[in-house]
Amino acid sequence: MVEKIVVVGGGAAGVSAALWARKVNRKAEIIVINREEFPEYSRCGLPYVISQIIPNPKSLIEHPTSWYDKFLRIRLKLNCVAVDGDPDKKILEIKNLKHDKMEKESYDKLIVATGSSPSIPPITGVDKGRVFTLKTINDATRINDVARKSRSAVIVGAGLIGLEVAEALRHLELKVTVVELLPQILPTILDADFARILQSKMEEHGITVLTGKRVEEIMGNENAKGVVVEGEEIPGDFVVVSTGVKPNTDFAQKMGVELGKTGGIKTNEYMETSVEDVFAAGDCVETKYLVTNEPILAAMGTVAVRQGKVAGINAAGGKMTYYGTVLTRTTKLFGYEVASVGLTSQQAEKRDIKAIVGTIRGRTKPEYFPSSKTLYVKILVNSEDGRIIGSQIIGEEGAAIRINVISLALLRKLTIEEFLSLETVYAPPISPVWDPLIVAADSVMRKLEKRKKKT
Amino acid sequence: MVEKIVVVGGGAAGVSAALWARKVNRKAEIIVINREEFPEYSRCGLPYVISQIIPNPKSLIEHPTSWYDKFLRIRLKLNCVAVDGDPDKKILEIKNLKHDKMEKESYDKLIVATGSSPSIPPITGVDKGRVFTLKTINDATRINDVARKSRSAVIVGAGLIGLEVAEALRHLELKVTVVELLPQILPTILDADFARILQSKMEEHGITVLTGKRVEEIMGNENAKGVVVEGEEIPGDFVVVSTGVKPNTDFAQKMGVELGKTGGIKTNEYMETSVEDVFAAGDCVETKYLVTNEPILAAMGTVAVRQGKVAGINAAGGKMTYYGTVLTRTTKLFGYEVASVGLTSQQAEKRDIKAIVGTIRGRTKPEYFPSSKTLYVKILVNSEDGRIIGSQIIGEEGAAIRINVISLALLRKLTIEEFLSLETVYAPPISPVWDPLIVAADSVMRKLEKRKKKT
Repeated sequence: MVEKIVVVGGGAAGVSAALWARKVNRKAEIIVINREEFPEYSRCGLPYVISQIIPNPKSLIEHPTSWYDKFLRIRLKLNCVAVDGDPDKKILEIKNLKHDKMEKESYDKLIVATGSSPSIPPITGVDKGRVFTLKTINDATRINDVARKSRSAVIVGAGLIGLEVAEALRHLELKVTVVELLPQILPTILDADFARILQSKMEEHGITVLTGKRVEEIMGNENAKGVVVEGEEIPGDFVVVSTGVKPNTDFAQKMGVELGKTGGIKTNEYMETSVEDVFAAGDCVETKYLVTNEPILAAMGTVAVRQGKVAGINAAGGKMTYYGTVLTRTTKLFGYEVASVGLTSQQAEKRDIKAIVGTIRGRTKPEYFPSSKTLYVKILVNSEDGRIIGSQIIGEEGAAIRINVISLALLRKLTIEEFLSLETVYAPPISPVWDPLIVAADSVMRKLEKRKKKT
Repeated sequence: MVEKIVVVGGGAAGVSAALWARKVNRKAEIIVINREEFPEYSRCGLPYVISQIIPNPKSLIEHPTSWYDKFLRIRLKLNCVAVDGDPDKKILEIKNLKHDKMEKESYDKLIVATGSSPSIPPITGVDKGRVFTLKTINDATRINDVARKSRSAVIVGAGLIGLEVAEALRHLELKVTVVELLPQILPTILDADFARILQSKMEEHGITVLTGKRVEEIMGNENAKGVVVEGEEIPGDFVVVSTGVKPNTDFAQKMGVELGKTGGIKTNEYMETSVEDVFAAGDCVETKYLVTNEPILAAMGTVAVRQGKVAGINAAGGKMTYYGTVLTRTTKLFGYEVASVGLTSQQAEKRDIKAIVGTIRGRTKPEYFPSSKTLYVKILVNSEDGRIIGSQIIGEEGAAIRINVISLALLRKLTIEEFLSLETVYAPPISPVWDPLIVAADSVMRKLEKRKKKT
């Protein structure tokens, strides 16, 4: 019988683990060690705190501390960090950051959900004042404070968060420049053609986007005053660096937990680490990419909560499996839904997978119906076996939820032919009789058949 | 080599067949015999012609006659009906309705796509003037003409089309009463609880809905003046009867084609009938219901175009398979998306399938995000094997497209456990971290596990 479960990390994975552990096990003592001063909140909501679309940052908090205690008998230890531990004696050393004192905590089952930290590139001047990263509520309110007194900003990195911050700052009417080292925005998520469509949307909304450009230096004395890109000075009252994250594994390593070659914690499909009775979940974990079977660092909320669920259920004495991720990703920028799953064309190429790509420009409703919108859909299949390996959809409506359909197809490793039997909904105010997904699938299918005939 | 393909029927199935035949076969002569005066148009758009949301009925026409001829060398014979034929000599007798004369047409491959006709219940007075059904553009414009001079109407039947017509007439500010024989609206599509939610939406918009009531008589002398329901007179300046359709099989029977026990044309998975070189597709065909393996009459546009595609490709010398339908259905009523796939609880019960039902009231976005909407989701699984057998979703946004995900799950016969590995998109302006689909699936899963423990 499991008597005491300790979760180290109070973010999405950690709290998901604690909640699901409680569902499975009514009796065990459950403790969550949380470095921050707030109980779990939505990190993905932070850009909307910057823009003040969400006026009160605390509304991101899922439940107050008392709720965990009162309704679920889950004890949150806020402002606390696990700094060390003994996996044989099953004892942790906890530092209370607020009272600056050490405590001990024993466990039967331990779940490591220490998350990730911003990965900062070695740019000269990156340690100056007014250079921000976005990871916590305090980061978001700090950026909002400075933004409201500023007229311009530079974002380094055109990934999902970089672009969401760019939109937020534009919403506050700042002059915004985004600088990306790679030749396109959202380089890990979109093919170049779709990235260009989105980039022109951003430019229409007044954002300056520089791709394929290296930030050489952050200007300014004490505080950042902009950046230098290829010798050219781009002024900005502050800088936000958004160039990915790295897994927090210090504590896990102290516990003797084995890491994978990506640098994330290695687990099996029950989210068990190499150390007995120690589970792990979330951004700190190395995950199987179901499309290629490679180990990857997913660093995504969707993955974190699913892994947390499985770790929590298994730690509490239940049984559940986490097989891996297909990397279902989305955001909304300037009224445009952007969604992607699986490999992009470039990622396929890097792995020597010959991808057949079907790209279409469809409509969300029949042409004749008022308020029909353009939808760009791309589906990639492996030319060897016809299996779907990726998809991207962008448009003003219906892009993101459609990606869920392809996400299921990837999870089940369907071929494009199998996918083409899908019966999509049809009604003029909802969707065309041939859904854009099917039109795109047909386009790939015909390319695939032509290729087969040739060979 | 196929030299001449004749398609009898110029609706969704027939034209889909002709277009796909041409994609596969550039040389064959292709002729489409169409009873109506217009080339193919969207029948599902007709309610929006009544409401004048689509002001010009002709905008429903997909392509002008000349387009078929010029770009695809497909010859449309409008105002023509195939009245008889000889499958041995491969000759058809065609009646030109406009010129009232007979013609002959030979074929190599024949595709029967004669569709369906409104099924009229034997109500006293149903043959009076101002009793309408809705099947053609002319029906829609006629109803619109009368509606604009009327103040009230009665709809008999609360299926998809009945309710869409009710909404259209309400849009024109008529007093509208809907009478349904069965105890709920959309009886073949929704469970009673979801039907009630929708019914109260309709009542909020001023529609009177009477369920579980039989229309005994249509009042009036020459023209309908309302209906009698359980002795009570319900006045109405006209009546629309919308109580389902029946397959048009007269011509097929004259060709010696075998019918199934549902009364629809029997085909194999290549859409071949019992008569050599005769294919069939669309509402006139009996289809396999993939959820139960029963033969059914689907009478749906989504099914018609898919069957037409397969019939056309195979008739033209290609090879494709149509396995059957999962009955993916949707509509939008008063801003509410309504979508359903597979069995309802009642339909499962009738078939002695013990269904476990998970019903949740979720949100389309995180609670804290502005413009989040309520979404009602229901998932049904077979308690014996845990396979998903149906789902219903209603809400102001994101209901219909989400049903496509379950449609794929039904097509692939997934269990709820397999489905729970789905990685849905997550971003605050798009969807919650646990999509309502997953929350509903979790709810079923836990019920299923509890049940297993008991037994």
